[in-house]
Amino acid sequence: MSKPLNIGMIGYGFMGRAHSNAYLKVPHFFDLEYRPVLKACCARSEDKIKEFAAKWGYESYETDWRRLIKRDDIDAVDICVPNNLHREIAIAAAEAGKMVLCEKPLAMDTAQGEEMVQAVEEAGVANMVWYNYRRVPAVTLSKQLLDEGRLGRVFHYRAQFLQDWTISADLPQGGTALWRLDAKAAGSGVTGDLLAHCIDTALWLNGPITSVCAMTETFVKQRKHQLTGQVEPVQIDDACAFLCRFANGSLGLFESTRYARGHKALYTYEVNGEHASLRWDLHDLHRLQYFDHRDDSLVRGWRSVHVSDSDQPYMGHWWVPGLQIGYEHTFVHQVADFLDALAKGQPCEPTFRTALETQKVCDAVLQSAREGSWVSIG
Amino acid sequence: MSKPLNIGMIGYGFMGRAHSNAYLKVPHFFDLEYRPVLKACCARSEDKIKEFAAKWGYESYETDWRRLIKRDDIDAVDICVPNNLHREIAIAAAEAGKMVLCEKPLAMDTAQGEEMVQAVEEAGVANMVWYNYRRVPAVTLSKQLLDEGRLGRVFHYRAQFLQDWTISADLPQGGTALWRLDAKAAGSGVTGDLLAHCIDTALWLNGPITSVCAMTETFVKQRKHQLTGQVEPVQIDDACAFLCRFANGSLGLFESTRYARGHKALYTYEVNGEHASLRWDLHDLHRLQYFDHRDDSLVRGWRSVHVSDSDQPYMGHWWVPGLQIGYEHTFVHQVADFLDALAKGQPCEPTFRTALETQKVCDAVLQSAREGSWVSIG
Amino acid sequence: MSKPLNIGMIGYGFMGRAHSNAYLKVPHFFDLEYRPVLKACCARSEDKIKEFAAKWGYESYETDWRRLIKRDDIDAVDICVPNNLHREIAIAAAEAGKMVLCEKPLAMDTAQGEEMVQAVEEAGVANMVWYNYRRVPAVTLSKQLLDEGRLGRVFHYRAQFLQDWTISADLPQGGTALWRLDAKAAGSGVTGDLLAHCIDTALWLNGPITSVCAMTETFVKQRKHQLTGQVEPVQIDDACAFLCRFANGSLGLFESTRYARGHKALYTYEVNGEHASLRWDLHDLHRLQYFDHRDDSLVRGWRSVHVSDSDQPYMGHWWVPGLQIGYEHTFVHQVADFLDALAKGQPCEPTFRTALETQKVCDAVLQSAREGSWVSIG
Amino acid sequence: MSKPLNIGMIGYGFMGRAHSNAYLKVPHFFDLEYRPVLKACCARSEDKIKEFAAKWGYESYETDWRRLIKRDDIDAVDICVPNNLHREIAIAAAEAGKMVLCEKPLAMDTAQGEEMVQAVEEAGVANMVWYNYRRVPAVTLSKQLLDEGRLGRVFHYRAQFLQDWTISADLPQGGTALWRLDAKAAGSGVTGDLLAHCIDTALWLNGPITSVCAMTETFVKQRKHQLTGQVEPVQIDDACAFLCRFANGSLGLFESTRYARGHKALYTYEVNGEHASLRWDLHDLHRLQYFDHRDDSLVRGWRSVHVSDSDQPYMGHWWVPGLQIGYEHTFVHQVADFLDALAKGQPCEPTFRTALETQKVCDAVLQSAREGSWVSIG
Repeated sequence: MSKPLNIGMIGYGFMGRAHSNAYLKVPHFFDLEYRPVLKACCARSEDKIKEFAAKWGYESYETDWRRLIKRDDIDAVDICVPNNLHREIAIAAAEAGKMVLCEKPLAMDTAQGEEMVQAVEEAGVANMVWYNYRRVPAVTLSKQLLDEGRLGRVFHYRAQFLQDWTISADLPQGGTALWRLDAKAAGSGVTGDLLAHCIDTALWLNGPITSVCAMTETFVKQRKHQLTGQVEPVQIDDACAFLCRFANGSLGLFESTRYARGHKALYTYEVNGEHASLRWDLHDLHRLQYFDHRDDSLVRGWRSVHVSDSDQPYMGHWWVPGLQIGYEHTFVHQVADFLDALAKGQPCEPTFRTALETQKVCDAVLQSAREGSWVSIG
Repeated sequence: MSKPLNIGMIGYGFMGRAHSNAYLKVPHFFDLEYRPVLKACCARSEDKIKEFAAKWGYESYETDWRRLIKRDDIDAVDICVPNNLHREIAIAAAEAGKMVLCEKPLAMDTAQGEEMVQAVEEAGVANMVWYNYRRVPAVTLSKQLLDEGRLGRVFHYRAQFLQDWTISADLPQGGTALWRLDAKAAGSGVTGDLLAHCIDTALWLNGPITSVCAMTETFVKQRKHQLTGQVEPVQIDDACAFLCRFANGSLGLFESTRYARGHKALYTYEVNGEHASLRWDLHDLHRLQYFDHRDDSLVRGWRSVHVSDSDQPYMGHWWVPGLQIGYEHTFVHQVADFLDALAKGQPCEPTFRTALETQKVCDAVLQSAREGSWVSIG
Repeated sequence: MSKPLNIGMIGYGFMGRAHSNAYLKVPHFFDLEYRPVLKACCARSEDKIKEFAAKWGYESYETDWRRLIKRDDIDAVDICVPNNLHREIAIAAAEAGKMVLCEKPLAMDTAQGEEMVQAVEEAGVANMVWYNYRRVPAVTLSKQLLDEGRLGRVFHYRAQFLQDWTISADLPQGGTALWRLDAKAAGSGVTGDLLAHCIDTALWLNGPITSVCAMTETFVKQRKHQLTGQVEPVQIDDACAFLCRFANGSLGLFESTRYARGHKALYTYEVNGEHASLRWDLHDLHRLQYFDHRDDSLVRGWRSVHVSDSDQPYMGHWWVPGLQIGYEHTFVHQVADFLDALAKGQPCEPTFRTALETQKVCDAVLQSAREGSWVSIG
Repeated sequence: MSKPLNIGMIGYGFMGRAHSNAYLKVPHFFDLEYRPVLKACCARSEDKIKEFAAKWGYESYETDWRRLIKRDDIDAVDICVPNNLHREIAIAAAEAGKMVLCEKPLAMDTAQGEEMVQAVEEAGVANMVWYNYRRVPAVTLSKQLLDEGRLGRVFHYRAQFLQDWTISADLPQGGTALWRLDAKAAGSGVTGDLLAHCIDTALWLNGPITSVCAMTETFVKQRKHQLTGQVEPVQIDDACAFLCRFANGSLGLFESTRYARGHKALYTYEVNGEHASLRWDLHDLHRLQYFDHRDDSLVRGWRSVHVSDSDQPYMGHWWVPGLQIGYEHTFVHQVADFLDALAKGQPCEPTFRTALETQKVCDAVLQSAREGSWVSIG
C-alpha cells in the first residue's frame, strides 16, 4: 500500500489546476511508493478557494497561507502564486519543515533566489521548481541523446519562445488574470516568464552559459492597470533576445516575445552537433526532429520522430504507439519523478539550487539589456 | 452538488484504463449535473481485477459480469471486452435496466448489432458506442465547418488508418493481448478495428454510403495461436481497401492496414468541397488542415490550424492557446457529452442505432471483398 | 565535338515549350556525344508557329506535319499535340525512318498503341514516351532504393494525382487550350491525363498490375464547347479511383481528380515495404520521405530527404547541395538519357512498348468503371 | 526584333554557370526589348575558359580581364570572381564605359564599396549586384505584401543562413574551389558570404538597420591552405550572429554558420507584424508561409502558399499551377528585370549604391564582434 504525501496547494489558477491534475493522475499511471493526497488548498478569496477545493477534491481549504504552512497534516507546500510571493512563502515553508515545490521562475531575482536556496538547504527539506518542459518525452529524449554523445561536440544552441497574446494595446495589465504584465508582481516580462523555460532547458542540455549580450523592448508603452484603474507605464519587457556563449564553446541565440503574430506558445530549441542535430517545438510537443550525419547519404534527412513508443521516455506509462499525450502530462511526469526521488532519498531536479542558475542568467540578460553590453556570468 | 452516476466497468485493458481515466477527470474540467462514480469493475481473473480496482479506485470488483449487471448500485455498464462478448453483455445489461456504454465496433456483425439496438431501445436505456475520435476537437470542428456549409458541395472523401505493428511473422495471434488478430474474438481484422473508426467519422461528416467495392488481404497466412499453442491459419483481414459512393454524390476511398511500415496509427481523412477542403491526421490530432478557395489568391494555401483556442470545440475546458491535449481527452469529452445528454434527457451520439450503420458498411465491405463485386447498402 | 541530332517539333503548347527548353539546356549541364539542334517546328497556324520558332530559335518551321516528317534534315520527331493525333503522326514518322518522341499518354487506347509499337519496332527507330516524372531525382532515387531491396517485400502501393482547376461549371471544354476536357481529343479525362503518370511510375517501381476495379465520375455533366459554341455533354471522367493487385502480391490504391479543392498538381505516391517505406509528392518534388524500420527505435522517424546532393540521381549536374531544381529539369534529364542511350545504341525507357503497358491498365480501368466489376490484365 | 546586349563574363565557376544559364533562358520566357548575347568570357586559365566557352556557347574568350573590358563589342561586364577582385575590375569596367553586373557581396569592405559606387555613378553606367534571392517569387511576394501594409507595424525580423559543409577539420582552405574559406580572397567568412544575403533581403523588406551587436566564432582554428600547402590559421568567421534594431522600431536577430549539422543551405526569414506574419525558407523556396490574424479565428493558421500561380510574382512566365521552379530561376528573373529596366532607362535594384548599405551592415557586424559592443550604423 502506498504512503500518502499530503499536499498543501497555495493558489488556484492555471498552475494550481495543472498541478492538481497531476497529483490525481500520477497513481493511475505510475507505480510509486508515495501517493499524493490533496489535503488542503489556499487563497485569500474564500469563495474562490472553496469552489476550487470542491472541484478538485481537496479535503480542506485555508485563506491564509501562513495557516496552511503551520498545519501538521501538510507534508509539501506547492507554491502557485505570482512571482513576488515566492520568496516569503518558500522560506516560511522551509522553516516550518515542509517540502517546497515552487512554480518557476524561482524568484524575482538572484538575491531572492539565494535566500530561498539557503532556506531549503538549511532546513534540509526536499525542494523542486516546476520547470515542467524537462519532462516532455521528446525533451527528455534530447537529454538522453546528448548524454550518450550522439551529437558529438556541440557548436550551436538556439531557442525561442514566441507568443502573440499581448499585441492589442487595449489589453490591460495587472490583477489576477494579467499579473504577468505587471512588473511588480512578475519581476520581468518575457525574460522571467518565457526565457526562463528556454534557459532552464539549455543549461540542462548544454551546460553553463558564461556570458550574455541582450536587448529588450517594450512595444506598448502604457496600459490601463486592472488594480488602480489608471493608465500606467508598462515596465516589463515585451520582447527579449540575447546572444551567449556556453562553457563548452558553443554559441547560443535566444529570443522571446509576446508580439510574434501567429505563434501561441512556440517554444522551440535546436542543437547542432558535430555528428547530429536535434530540434523540438512545443506546438507539436510529441515529436522530435533528429538529423544524423552518419546515415547513408542517399537517404539522409531530418527525421520526424513521433515520440510515443514504450521505449521512449515516460511513454511506456501511457497508451500505445502513435497515440499522443499533451501538455498536462509534463506535470504528471514531474510529480512521478519527485515521488520516486523522495522514496530513494534523492533530490529531484531542478532543485532550488539548480533553478538559481537560470535566475542568474535571467538577471545577467536584463542587466546586459539595460547596460547595452556583454555581461559575464560568474 | 452533482448527482452520482455509478459505473460498472467490464474489462481492465487498454480501453478499461482509457475510460476510467475519463470518468475521473471529467468533473475537474467540466461543470456537469452528473458525476461518474467508479462503483465496480469486473473481470474473470480476480488477481487482475483486484489490482485494477486498487489502481483506479473502484470501490469494489466482481469476477462475473452477470453479477455486476444485477447489482442495484450500478447505473451504467461499460463494456470494454473483446467484440465477441459485446452482444450478450449489452443485451443482458439493457434487460437489467442499465445504461450501456459499449466499446466499438458495436458487434461482430449487423445481425448481432440489430439485436443489441432492439434490446436497448426496448429497455429504453441510455446507450452509446465509444467511437471516440468524433470528440477530437479538430474532428468536431470539421463537423461544425461542414454543417455550416463552408465546403459547399462535397466531391471527395478519403480516409485511411495505417499501422505497422503486425508485420513480423513471429507475432502470435489470440489471447488477452492479441485477441484483435483472432477472428473468433474480433470478428474481422482491420475492417472492424480500424476502418470502423473511419466509417463512423465519414457517416457523421458526409452522410450515408450507398455502395462499396472492397478488397482484403491477409499477408501472413498462419501464426501461432496464444491459446492453443498451435500454428493456425490467420482468418482476419490484414488489410482492406474500398471504393464507395455517398448518398450526396461524392466519391469515397478508404484504406486500412497493419502493414504500412512507418505508421503507428495514422488515421487521416480529407474532404474536398466546392469551396474548401479539410484534412486531419491522428498523429497530430491537435491540428486541422484547412484550405479555403475564397481566400485572396496571392496568399491562398493550406492552413495548419493549431486547435487549442478557447473558441474551438472543447478547448475552453483545458489550458491556454498553444498547449495541446492528447488522445485520452477524446474519452473525457465523450463522457462529458454523455453526462450532459443524460441531464437533458437526450441521446448521446453515436447511439447503438447510429453505430449499427457503421456495422452495415463493414459487413458490406467484407461481403464485397469476398464476392469481388460492388455491394449496395440498403 | 558533339554530333547534332536534328529535332522536328510538332506542337507549340505547354509541352512544346517544356521540351524545347530541355533540348537547349541539356548540353550545358551534361557531357554527351549528341547535341540536340532545333531544326524545325510545326503547327497549322503559321502565325503561331512562326512566333514560336523565333522565340525558341528553331531554324525553320512548317505548317503541315507531313512535310516536316519528309524532311531529310530531321532526325527525330517530337509529338506534342493532343492525344487523338499521336497515332497517325507516330506511325508516319516511323515509316519515314525518324526517331519518335511522343508525349504521354501513348495513344487514345491500347489498339492504337499496339499499332504504334508495331510501327516503331518494324522501322527499327529509337522511340520514347515523355513520362517525365521518372526523372524527378527523388523518383529515380525511389527506383534505386527499391531495386537495392531496401524496402524488402512490398505490401502497399498508393498514388494520387489531385487537381482542382475544373471545379467551376463555367469553364468551357475543347479547343486549343482546353482539349483535355474534350473526349474526342483526349480519349479520356483524368485517367489518361493524370492516372497515366501514376500508373507509369507504379509499373516501373513496383512491377505489373494484374487486376483492377475502378469507379469514375463526371461531376459537371455539360459544358459549352469552345469549337461548336454549343453546350454539350461532358464525356470525360472528372475523377477516377481504382483498387488493384500487383503481380508481386502487393495491393494498390489509385485516385485522380480535378475536383480536389486546394490541390494544384498533387501527384503523390507511397510504397510500404517490410523494412522501409517511401513517399513522394510533386508539390515538393525535390524531397523524398523515407522511413527505415532498421533505424535505432529511439530516433526512428520519417526522414525528409532534400534530394540535392551530388551523389543523388542527376543532382551532380546542377548546383550545390541545398539548392533545388524544379519541374522543367525532368525533361532535361529525359533528353540527356535519350541522347546517352542513343550513343550506346540502347533503348531509352519508357519506350513505346513499355508505355503500352500503362495504356493497357488505363483501358482496363475505364472498362472496369463502365462495367462495375474487376477486370484482369492479360 | 530584340536588341542584342553583349555580355562579357569574367569567371567560369558556380556563378559563371548560373548567370550564363540565365542569359540564355531569359528570351524564351520573357518578352523583352533586349536580348543577352554571350559575346566573350574570361579567365586566366586558357584551358578552362576555352572549355567553358564551348560548353555555354560564348562566341570568344579572353585570358586577361583587362583585354575583355577594352573590347568594343562588349556592353556589359559580369564579375563572377572572388571578392578581392571585385573592386579593381568593376572600376576599370565602369571607366571603360561598360555596364557592370557584380556578384555579391559588392566588395571586401565599405571603403572599397564606396569607390565602386563612385566609379559607376561617375561613369553613368548601369550597374547591379547579384543578390538573387530578391527574385525568388515567394520573396518578391513578401515584399509586395509588406508594401501593401498587410502586416501592419512590424515588431520582429529574424533571419538565418545555416550550412554544414565545413565541419570536417580535414577540409582545406583557399584555392579555386575553397576561396570562400580564405580571408584574403573572401574578406570574411559567413558574414560576407551568407549574412550578406540575409541583410540585403532584410533592408529591402524591412528598411534600414540602425545598430548591431554581434559575436563571431572560428571553430576550426587552422586548416591546410590549398595554395601554400601549409597548415595556416583560419581567419574567417565560421559562424556569426547578431542582434539589431531597425529604423522602424522592430527588433532583428540574424545568424549564420557553416556548422549547423543537417542544413545544407537553410536560408530562412520571418517577419512578425501587428496583423500578419510571413516566413520563407530556401530549402522549399517555392513556398511562402503566411499567417493572417484577421482570418476567422476558428480556422486561423499558418498557410503554406505554393507560389506557382500565374498571378504570383514571375510565375506567369513559367509552367502551370503546382509545378515548381528552382534556384536557377532567380537569376533569370534578375536578368529579365535588368533588361527591362535598361529598356526603360531606369536603375535595376539592387544597384551598387543599394548594395553598399549591406556592406556597411556587414562591416558594423564584424566590428561589433571584434569590439564586443554595440555599433551604430550612420
